[in-house]
Amino acid sequence: MRKILIIGAGRSSSSLIKYLLDKSKVENLHIIVGDLDKNTALSKIDNHSNASAITLDIFNESNRKDAIKNSDIVISMLPANLHIEVAKDCLFYEKNMVTASYVSKEMNALNEDVAKKGLIFMNEIGVDPGIDHMSAMQVIDKIRDNGGKMILFESFTGGLVAPESDDNLWNYKFTWNPRNVVISGQGGAAKFIQEGTYKYIPYQKLFRRTEILNIDGYGKFEAYANRDSLKYRSIYGLDDIPTLYRGTIRRLGFSRAWNIFVQLGMTDDSYTMEGSENMTYRDFTNSFLAYNPNDSVELKLRYYLKIDQDDIIWEKLLELNLFSKTKKVELKNATPAQILQKILMDSWTLKKSDKDMIVMHHKFGYEYNGEKRQIESQMVVKGDDQTYTAMAKTVGLPVAIAALKILNKEITISGVQIPILKEIYTPILKELESYNIVFNEKKVPYMGYNPENVSA
Amino acid sequence: MRKILIIGAGRSSSSLIKYLLDKSKVENLHIIVGDLDKNTALSKIDNHSNASAITLDIFNESNRKDAIKNSDIVISMLPANLHIEVAKDCLFYEKNMVTASYVSKEMNALNEDVAKKGLIFMNEIGVDPGIDHMSAMQVIDKIRDNGGKMILFESFTGGLVAPESDDNLWNYKFTWNPRNVVISGQGGAAKFIQEGTYKYIPYQKLFRRTEILNIDGYGKFEAYANRDSLKYRSIYGLDDIPTLYRGTIRRLGFSRAWNIFVQLGMTDDSYTMEGSENMTYRDFTNSFLAYNPNDSVELKLRYYLKIDQDDIIWEKLLELNLFSKTKKVELKNATPAQILQKILMDSWTLKKSDKDMIVMHHKFGYEYNGEKRQIESQMVVKGDDQTYTAMAKTVGLPVAIAALKILNKEITISGVQIPILKEIYTPILKELESYNIVFNEKKVPYMGYNPENVSA
Repeated sequence: MRKILIIGAGRSSSSLIKYLLDKSKVENLHIIVGDLDKNTALSKIDNHSNASAITLDIFNESNRKDAIKNSDIVISMLPANLHIEVAKDCLFYEKNMVTASYVSKEMNALNEDVAKKGLIFMNEIGVDPGIDHMSAMQVIDKIRDNGGKMILFESFTGGLVAPESDDNLWNYKFTWNPRNVVISGQGGAAKFIQEGTYKYIPYQKLFRRTEILNIDGYGKFEAYANRDSLKYRSIYGLDDIPTLYRGTIRRLGFSRAWNIFVQLGMTDDSYTMEGSENMTYRDFTNSFLAYNPNDSVELKLRYYLKIDQDDIIWEKLLELNLFSKTKKVELKNATPAQILQKILMDSWTLKKSDKDMIVMHHKFGYEYNGEKRQIESQMVVKGDDQTYTAMAKTVGLPVAIAALKILNKEITISGVQIPILKEIYTPILKELESYNIVFNEKKVPYMGYNPENVSA
Repeated sequence: MRKILIIGAGRSSSSLIKYLLDKSKVENLHIIVGDLDKNTALSKIDNHSNASAITLDIFNESNRKDAIKNSDIVISMLPANLHIEVAKDCLFYEKNMVTASYVSKEMNALNEDVAKKGLIFMNEIGVDPGIDHMSAMQVIDKIRDNGGKMILFESFTGGLVAPESDDNLWNYKFTWNPRNVVISGQGGAAKFIQEGTYKYIPYQKLFRRTEILNIDGYGKFEAYANRDSLKYRSIYGLDDIPTLYRGTIRRLGFSRAWNIFVQLGMTDDSYTMEGSENMTYRDFTNSFLAYNPNDSVELKLRYYLKIDQDDIIWEKLLELNLFSKTKKVELKNATPAQILQKILMDSWTLKKSDKDMIVMHHKFGYEYNGEKRQIESQMVVKGDDQTYTAMAKTVGLPVAIAALKILNKEITISGVQIPILKEIYTPILKELESYNIVFNEKKVPYMGYNPENVSA
């Protein structure tokens, strides 16, 4: 029996664990699920005969080392900043390792030692990062292999609510960490390249510079720019590309309404508000508006942000109870972002029967024999339920598949890696298709970056 | 002969040095002006018989200590972060000290030792901070001494160009450090209290929430909120005051136009721009606008920020050559803020014949015998020329007057101080009047914080 240690049995581990349990008999696997809370681990393995649950406190060194030493490969589903201790032990005990997280500086520093021992530490093999790398590189490599030259790459991903569970005016619910949604886009201007020119969007304009996307069968979506679209420029071999853009997908109209929070200052996470504990939602809203002895909070806000009487934005704000005199913030020394998160969670938390949806959209522009061409590639994945969510599937399945292929020596590269090489992404993308994680690719006329016709 | 050591002979030292030289015979003073560049020091003393110039490198410990040891009182006109080494030597050699800078944590930590030795380190005795403290506390103390209760304090200061030298559409020139103007308001939301409610303005709205002020004889001005209006709440004894607001004064219309830079992202100092060295001003502007193969930079900007065809904002932007195809940025790895500063300095640098102007405006609301009353107090100081600027006078004269009064034991308090006590501000404000630094005080009807009537 080959032993696979999974550290962390949270929401994102469900599809990962199910995949490995389902393969355990055929592949001769024993799955050890370790979590700080053993009950969480137990619930995930559901008495499966090829699995065991253990209490695992990664801050307890002997506990951690014993578990790692006693396994054949380690999958870390811990928060990103906690992988490094696991990685060091994996290096010491010579175990391969898989994570869905971005490669940290500390992780990257292990590369030489990992390679020297012939080990592989595979990272960024969830959905974003992960499936985005693999699906993009598959098309980019194909274009290049055919003698094409890349001139445009745009890539968009969003975690959304599935249409059948979409019942609010924002067409949005929290399907992942709400905090990341509230502070999204902060910390510096978004940077990208359009037709050879570097472009910068400050936070205060980020949600007013969206692009519109068509997703076949799902209608129109919009996307706002990620902070650093150029992060993978060199890694993808696109150093000279004139257009490079990455964005986050939302339903049409979301960003324009979200901009109200940005303009008011409600997404600010840099200071705490006086007396936040005793504020009503209305008090919170009023904190960002000028004092006036005569006017209502409603009219002050409408006037300040020039919201027309019949603008749907207004209905979106009402839906969130932003002017409620009875709903209380009840958070002590909270930042505006923390309070906004609480208010949004009242309205945007998934119900038990709700399904989520992951949408990914790539545009590849290239020159072939002097002719400009374009390929678009789209993926839509819906959750089955609240356990096997689209997020859990798209994060967990590539992790699980990669881990098994490493164990089976079908992936043999060494070092600290991300899945951008053919020998890695080809078999993984292929297997993902049998789980309905499929990219639909089509040729379209080349449009370049032409904002007028971008979705024509 | 009593020896006064002045460290730093920059622009802000001219009125300070002149004051002390003028008093030197009667008061039996010898003025030692120390600067890293001895020629700067020499030019300031102009062969005066009661003065000498020395080379002073404050990073050269023996050089610094010798100069301090050899003086009776020390005035430090260094940049704020450099006072502390001077202060430590002053403590060791038991010399009194005066600065125009904010009290740093390090400076404040010396308080007990300074007091123990019976010394005084007087800080924040320039214009802002300085004259603002003194002029405000004089009225606040008077109100309280008469049995009134403070219910409103608003205070505004601005460094501007004098009307006779005002020849651009922005009605503004740089009269002090341009960098501080470009990044003004950044680093967190502005916070203040209006009628008992805490209010917060994020940077992206700061320049759209101005108040309008009338300055007698000078017309209307506007002010935007300072980052922390509550900084002196306890120090002024205003802990329970329902309205407390501090702001920065500009000419009408400045802030609305400045907001264009904020919205574009041109004031951002957190990242460097690719290829900044070879950009034209037009390229710089275009970096913040979407790519479009057909439209001009001009129309893209007008459309993006909804600038009407006949809006004076547009003429303001044109005046700065923001769309010039020939003017080059010529700054390597520059931040947007650094580039904007350069562009503005082309247009907003004072000419040799130009005069500057400092404007200060306070509003004091109070209750007296159940009746609400209001006092307004205003100061306008103009520069004589480019040496004895309004800034040099209002910063340097209070420093000089305080230093002489400490030397003459007319100010006898000890410890690390700021000028908020009667015994300090009364004689200093009185003497400032003979230099035309005068506050005009008048009673007005109490308005409270009422934005509709604020300047009625």
